[in-house]
Amino acid sequence: MSGRITIIGLGPGDARYLTHEADAALAAADTLFGYGPYLDRVPVRNHQTRRASDNREESARAMAALQCAAEGASVAVVSGGDPGVFAMAAAVCEAIDSGPQAWRHLDLHCIPGITAMLAVAARVGAPLGHDFCAISLSDNLKPWPMIERRLDAAAGAGFVIALYNPISRARPWQLRSAFDRLRRHLPGSIPVVFGRAIGRAGEELVLSSLADADPARADMATLIIVGSVETRVIEREGQSPLVYTPRSLQCASV
Amino acid sequence: MSGRITIIGLGPGDARYLTHEADAALAAADTLFGYGPYLDRVPVRNHQTRRASDNREESARAMAALQCAAEGASVAVVSGGDPGVFAMAAAVCEAIDSGPQAWRHLDLHCIPGITAMLAVAARVGAPLGHDFCAISLSDNLKPWPMIERRLDAAAGAGFVIALYNPISRARPWQLRSAFDRLRRHLPGSIPVVFGRAIGRAGEELVLSSLADADPARADMATLIIVGSVETRVIEREGQSPLVYTPRSLQCASV
Repeated sequence: MSGRITIIGLGPGDARYLTHEADAALAAADTLFGYGPYLDRVPVRNHQTRRASDNREESARAMAALQCAAEGASVAVVSGGDPGVFAMAAAVCEAIDSGPQAWRHLDLHCIPGITAMLAVAARVGAPLGHDFCAISLSDNLKPWPMIERRLDAAAGAGFVIALYNPISRARPWQLRSAFDRLRRHLPGSIPVVFGRAIGRAGEELVLSSLADADPARADMATLIIVGSVETRVIEREGQSPLVYTPRSLQCASV
Repeated sequence: MSGRITIIGLGPGDARYLTHEADAALAAADTLFGYGPYLDRVPVRNHQTRRASDNREESARAMAALQCAAEGASVAVVSGGDPGVFAMAAAVCEAIDSGPQAWRHLDLHCIPGITAMLAVAARVGAPLGHDFCAISLSDNLKPWPMIERRLDAAAGAGFVIALYNPISRARPWQLRSAFDRLRRHLPGSIPVVFGRAIGRAGEELVLSSLADADPARADMATLIIVGSVETRVIEREGQSPLVYTPRSLQCASV
């Protein structure tokens, strides 16, 4: 056995979302790899080396981290949210799958974190209180017709839908197209939650409806939750509304 | 404003999965409500009152906690995993929706936690690395045909599927039926992960396939992840295999 590689979920924002397990894993590493803004959230420790890279370089980062671990280092790869949800854990596994045999002998661990949809849901109540799915709207890595097919299937079967990677400069039209697609299946009254930069500076929560959902409200830091026909809104005087999906569903919606 | 109610996710197991935010919220409460085994995970503090209840009494617990907060207490409702995923946050929202107006004036917060599917996924690699859904197999609160329809939709559209509440003494046949249903859509070679009591005493991980998936391997403490046709297994000499779903999917499976 040579080195060690640990892929660590930082949660959506500042240190309050870190688990004790993630804290301990961060402290135990000698070399940290990650997207710069995620690395910036990790307290500086003098004995550690930091290797920041761009967020479009996940495969290269995974390979560099594995190579560093194979040379004997104790490597941490930091990931926003949960590393297993549209993040670095799959990138590292892909690199191992197609890389040298030595990488399979590394001591590898994943440390789960609070993924964005859980943080956004907690801010508004319990919109994920019943069956739900998570779909990335990025068509960089899969064809758009597959995304449409999944939106159709999820909306048609009554899942609440969390949309990751809704929009970027390189992908400006996909979110509008996704909302249009969902409107084929779902009434306009369905609650839609835009959660931006939850737990960080510039945090913003907007409650809209499928009829009024405006793609311009989203950016790369936004996670969107589209309710099901069962999702309800509780108005509260002097406070923001609660949004939740009941545990008990009605036969009528089968 | 009268009292305060905070619904806190403990994560799947011991204190290593607690976030700093959850720690602080647990310390700030004067009255704790929860299912007994979850309360038992919270360190005892002398100034706090504990009110344990059975896990089939979620609605009654939610109402008692809200009433206690309305009388001025600072209440914490503890939940295993994440409170927003098939857990107490929806139960509390339901109680507010049908309860007295005073409950809407309470200062309410949800603190997210590591839900079981993230913990199980982290143990084996990154099976949730691409689009996925979470389905509760409990037909106590929704009709079985709706569950079948969701299994059909999810498998047909290529989602990885996390199965919560797979089996219990009162629901002995549902998991076998769900596997049979999924076999209509998916090849038998698809990886299936059984994660039992992750992060707790008696933790057990089993990697199987859809063809061989044995419902008898599951109990109330088990979370099951059924892969998609894209999910891959990396064999490793002297270590358990890695299971992951690549970020980049092939057009062929549309």
